[in-house]
Amino acid sequence: MATFAFHGDLVWAESPGRLRQVPDGYLLIQDNLILGVSEERPSCPVEEHQGSLVIPALYDLHLHAPQYAYCGLWMDEELLGWLEKHTFPIESRYKDPGFSDRAYGSLVDDITRSGTARFSMFGTIYADSTLALMAALERAGLSGYVGKVNMDRNSPDYYREETWESLAETERFLDAASSFGHVMPIITPRFTPSCSESLLEGLGRLAKERKVPVQSHLDENLSEIDWVRELCPWSRHYAETYERYGLFGDTPAIMAHCIYLDDEELGLMREKGVYVAHAPSSNANVSSGIAPVRKFLEMGISTGLSSDVAGGSSLSMFRAVTDAVQASKLRWRCVDSSLSALSFSDAFFLATKGGGSFFGNAGSFEKGYEADVLVIDDWKGGSVLHPELTPEERLEYYTYRHPDEFIAAKLVGGRRII
Amino acid sequence: MATFAFHGDLVWAESPGRLRQVPDGYLLIQDNLILGVSEERPSCPVEEHQGSLVIPALYDLHLHAPQYAYCGLWMDEELLGWLEKHTFPIESRYKDPGFSDRAYGSLVDDITRSGTARFSMFGTIYADSTLALMAALERAGLSGYVGKVNMDRNSPDYYREETWESLAETERFLDAASSFGHVMPIITPRFTPSCSESLLEGLGRLAKERKVPVQSHLDENLSEIDWVRELCPWSRHYAETYERYGLFGDTPAIMAHCIYLDDEELGLMREKGVYVAHAPSSNANVSSGIAPVRKFLEMGISTGLSSDVAGGSSLSMFRAVTDAVQASKLRWRCVDSSLSALSFSDAFFLATKGGGSFFGNAGSFEKGYEADVLVIDDWKGGSVLHPELTPEERLEYYTYRHPDEFIAAKLVGGRRII
Repeated sequence: MATFAFHGDLVWAESPGRLRQVPDGYLLIQDNLILGVSEERPSCPVEEHQGSLVIPALYDLHLHAPQYAYCGLWMDEELLGWLEKHTFPIESRYKDPGFSDRAYGSLVDDITRSGTARFSMFGTIYADSTLALMAALERAGLSGYVGKVNMDRNSPDYYREETWESLAETERFLDAASSFGHVMPIITPRFTPSCSESLLEGLGRLAKERKVPVQSHLDENLSEIDWVRELCPWSRHYAETYERYGLFGDTPAIMAHCIYLDDEELGLMREKGVYVAHAPSSNANVSSGIAPVRKFLEMGISTGLSSDVAGGSSLSMFRAVTDAVQASKLRWRCVDSSLSALSFSDAFFLATKGGGSFFGNAGSFEKGYEADVLVIDDWKGGSVLHPELTPEERLEYYTYRHPDEFIAAKLVGGRRII
Repeated sequence: MATFAFHGDLVWAESPGRLRQVPDGYLLIQDNLILGVSEERPSCPVEEHQGSLVIPALYDLHLHAPQYAYCGLWMDEELLGWLEKHTFPIESRYKDPGFSDRAYGSLVDDITRSGTARFSMFGTIYADSTLALMAALERAGLSGYVGKVNMDRNSPDYYREETWESLAETERFLDAASSFGHVMPIITPRFTPSCSESLLEGLGRLAKERKVPVQSHLDENLSEIDWVRELCPWSRHYAETYERYGLFGDTPAIMAHCIYLDDEELGLMREKGVYVAHAPSSNANVSSGIAPVRKFLEMGISTGLSSDVAGGSSLSMFRAVTDAVQASKLRWRCVDSSLSALSFSDAFFLATKGGGSFFGNAGSFEKGYEADVLVIDDWKGGSVLHPELTPEERLEYYTYRHPDEFIAAKLVGGRRII
């Protein structure tokens, strides 16, 4: 088995609020796994990155692949206008393989160059386009989940499926997607307003039969919540509209946003091990609000970060870390001073081990964790203070600036991406 | 007189909420001024930038030059801890010309490469270091105001002046700084808690005698406001502590932050033509809150944007534009839904003509305005949708991404910077 080590300044987060650092240390890697951290030079081959940061790669728990083409556009629109005027018309263009290949090509290139190792991604309603995206991500050496989106109601005629068609296409998608090694399928009801109860029921059955995880949206904004209450008058809360159909933790599940969870929903999230994908940039851009992330941490609810492209306006998960810190400070000041703000190390934990646990043992430098690693030549951006800073401080400085071109090496499950 | 034109896709803002665009147009420039915009090819020499954006350069109404060395560091600290543990110790190191030159060299390089044309900047309490900074900015061809900071109380012994010394050094600074052409001095009491009333009085006298503008901080956070009330029990509000001494619009003035202005202060800002430097990034990082910018616009209070390095964590004024939009949306959602959020074009106006008016006629493509111009090769970052987008849409897309390396040309007062 192939073993080697990165030599550099190691920093990682094993728990919220606490970074660990080993300056001038060695990260030992065997095939796809972390073997451990050493302060002594090991006997295996060493890849020299002295003076550079060696950190875990980051995880993006929620983004919309087809929306990357307009990430940072039309931000003045409210959610519903944005969906109708831009999102649905453009997503429908991915039916054309030429458009789909060009647009997804650019996304795959940019994720490859970024700090993101693994992700959970929405495609479009088109199975073939989504499979092509998965193939491109697989070729790039990346890992994660990609879903064919399901929508059979409250969507324009040109971008909506019949219920039977949505389920049949999802089955076909799951069959075809099983051939990839590192990029895996995920069941993806867009959100309750877009999915009839028959569709949700069918998707829940598929998730259970095929043992496939689930991703969707939950409690993003107040009018959406009212709408769900109207559509499902039997439900005690939004979460129940997924839970009733086996889409809420019966298999691993990620729910994006979770800004307005009530106490029962919070309890259910914890009990069923459902992940929050916290998307601070999107929640500001779409005027949704700010999720109570400190409460999730206190309750032990699994939480990771999300770029939520293109509600979010940046693909960078380093940017998501600082957005999460800033949003939590504004929440503390403007909404609820009983929940303290996130520290930098809290947010860095969320972007690494916090979200990484959705993918198994990932996001830390503990023994047996996936070898998802970044080497950052942060001395290139050197402040005059650089020589005086600790690796932890340099990580914070880099994270607020995060130029992708300083990434000198990137491993995903031990595979060399950069 | 030398006249030439930029050929490209012109976009600028003449008023809040409304962009103007001339696709495939010509921006005519004579020496340091805009001559006008034409859809027809002019007879003067044309610099070809077909397919690129041609836009006004941006203005940064408030930043701390010595803090750029740690922009994006120690963001977990609260304001007072941050000042004592990091800001004051590091600012005091600028007494050493070697340190000062290296640190300011990096700032000047990065501003030169950025979209910022003009600025109003705090230096340190050291006149010589501040003069050296001004000389470097002047050599780089940039424009704006730089102040020697005044502090004679509530500061550590190693970074505090005697009152007489602070005033004498300010006079010496003003004398020496009058030799620069485009970089000009500005009176800079750090803020009321750092300045005795004798010092404020002396500075007000100097501002009036020398006809020099003023910059300071106002109503940034609630405990700061309480502190000012304690220190100046005679004052009706924080603004009066400057106004009483001729530091509040008797000469042109910029006040950073202005989050918690009361009605009387709002009225005084308008009446005296005092500028707000709105600093959304800093106001989140330091957990201050969100300024009611829509109210400033409705009342006709002069307002520009600020990076507020290093309370703010980015030097980019494009980033400040999108931060202002996001913050205003969160304010609408979380604080006060009676004030609508800023649109992209509102915020772009603030970063150009809004703040630019502090420097004269600056920030627009109207005839007689300063030739402060950026050419952006935004096709380099091309989304698959790029060919379908209007110049206005491309400006928004670029602004959310803002890679400095796409800036193909930059003029400040007609001087070629890039």
